[in-house]
Amino acid sequence: MTKLILDLDTGVDDALAIAYALGSPEVELIGITGTYGNVLLDQGVRNALAITDLLGHPEVGVYKGLPHSSTTDSFEVLEISKFIHGANGIGDVSIPDSNREPQSEPAVDFIIDAAKTYGKELVYVPTGPMTNIAAALRKAPEIKDEIGRIVLMGGALTVCGNVNAWEEANISQDPDAADYLFRSGAPATMIGLDVTLQTLLTYRETRQWRDLGTKAGAFLADMTDFYIKAYETTSPHLGGCGLHDPLAVGVAVDPTLVDTLPMNLKVDVDGPTRGRTIGDNTRLNDPVKTMKAAVGVDVPRFLHEFMTRITALAKHAG
Amino acid sequence: MTKLILDLDTGVDDALAIAYALGSPEVELIGITGTYGNVLLDQGVRNALAITDLLGHPEVGVYKGLPHSSTTDSFEVLEISKFIHGANGIGDVSIPDSNREPQSEPAVDFIIDAAKTYGKELVYVPTGPMTNIAAALRKAPEIKDEIGRIVLMGGALTVCGNVNAWEEANISQDPDAADYLFRSGAPATMIGLDVTLQTLLTYRETRQWRDLGTKAGAFLADMTDFYIKAYETTSPHLGGCGLHDPLAVGVAVDPTLVDTLPMNLKVDVDGPTRGRTIGDNTRLNDPVKTMKAAVGVDVPRFLHEFMTRITALAKHAG
Repeated sequence: MTKLILDLDTGVDDALAIAYALGSPEVELIGITGTYGNVLLDQGVRNALAITDLLGHPEVGVYKGLPHSSTTDSFEVLEISKFIHGANGIGDVSIPDSNREPQSEPAVDFIIDAAKTYGKELVYVPTGPMTNIAAALRKAPEIKDEIGRIVLMGGALTVCGNVNAWEEANISQDPDAADYLFRSGAPATMIGLDVTLQTLLTYRETRQWRDLGTKAGAFLADMTDFYIKAYETTSPHLGGCGLHDPLAVGVAVDPTLVDTLPMNLKVDVDGPTRGRTIGDNTRLNDPVKTMKAAVGVDVPRFLHEFMTRITALAKHAG
Repeated sequence: MTKLILDLDTGVDDALAIAYALGSPEVELIGITGTYGNVLLDQGVRNALAITDLLGHPEVGVYKGLPHSSTTDSFEVLEISKFIHGANGIGDVSIPDSNREPQSEPAVDFIIDAAKTYGKELVYVPTGPMTNIAAALRKAPEIKDEIGRIVLMGGALTVCGNVNAWEEANISQDPDAADYLFRSGAPATMIGLDVTLQTLLTYRETRQWRDLGTKAGAFLADMTDFYIKAYETTSPHLGGCGLHDPLAVGVAVDPTLVDTLPMNLKVDVDGPTRGRTIGDNTRLNDPVKTMKAAVGVDVPRFLHEFMTRITALAKHAG
């Protein structure tokens, strides 16, 4: 069975990604590695522990990753992130702290160990900055050939960014780490804004969770409504909220949900377009393409899978 | 039969585009409209007249278009254009002036008249800035629904630009005109650097033209060798010269040469990425996609068609 590691800066859509993974019988979520972005590292780790408890899966270990990019000394949450995810990252909804602690093994070591233990069975899904996987690849470069797949949420190839015209938020937090991953040769699929801004959720769907009458359902509905409301301000033309991180999990479970272009991608790290994800012209005619960029998505099928899996989980979690 | 208009700033690859069109029995080249870019308008018109004569097709009328963009008062050829195409635009190769004059009808009116006369039979192929077609669309907006197809060489969607990291040369000459075309709703296919930098010609191919022993073959070989030599300096990693404009003609004749993404494209006209071609996020979820962006090309098949058609033409032109 496919083993899944989610690398999360647990905000709202990260929480939905956890629910999607736990609701997918095809995969086993063997751990969550924490990163920074939507929230600080510690808040994200706290959220991941609390959410896995609430969703009835306290067996999922949570590992602490790196607290900021390798090119900075610290990290502060942006005001826009607080606006979209709430100050606590999960729509300012209160859920009980877990009585579990994070695992003692650092996230970077856990990723390397999992690649060595599970090999091609392992799918690693980073939905925040690529800081942890870049550190793992620097420490143990051979895992690029050992790991099964990497399915990352981040970047924007054929559409504009969401930080500015060319930068997507996850990549913008650590462009150098993403560039390191993209040029590493690891088999990675980029699930960017190209596709995630096509997969939209509305209050109509969250009501189904609230109507379950369970704690898990109420949490998911309240948290996601906060997120949809923020989207009404930031992206009123969309008519819903983008299911960024859950789509990456969806593709980890079933790659046929998206159409991809085989490509050799890079991240601009210098110049005015720092943080842009784009094809590497110097490797355009290289017959070996190490990455795939998602450029199309089966929206109805994904939304059906998303609702079916998460609703069933939220019903049975109680 | 498909009627073709080429809109050219007749430099080297524009000349090859003329040869490809004249060597394609599936289409009738009903006219060439002149623009600026690789050379000044008048030099390009001069070249188009001389080349159609040399290639044995003096029946092809050449129409003078606009000499500069609508946002500038004049146009000067960039030093890099002279380096790539030669001061005379055709690799500093001397060929006789035509004794014909350009047609008296302005290019913009000719384009409009042709759309009204031929409708869906008409394919318009701009391989310089989009100044003429934008002016035609402003003067007669209804032609967007009347014209068959527009196949443009320009832009860069999944790769870096060739003017800077985000700007391709043709679009950079008049980003506003290109944006006007892209948002107009006209059925346009963008043949960008994404694909044209995959279709490379080398001295091995140009030798076949020289070996024909004809004037046309010698001209094509000498002119293209100048261009290949410039590429050795500007893009040494490629190992040949990009067949930008001929690929647009190739796709005009046979759309199956490329794989395309249906999209709603725009051009950044404001901000630091002015001149970038990118998906319009505000129309991402619009079920109607008015444009297509080429993201893959059947390289061997195109090169075969390119060599077969042009070599036969250059042999029989004498």
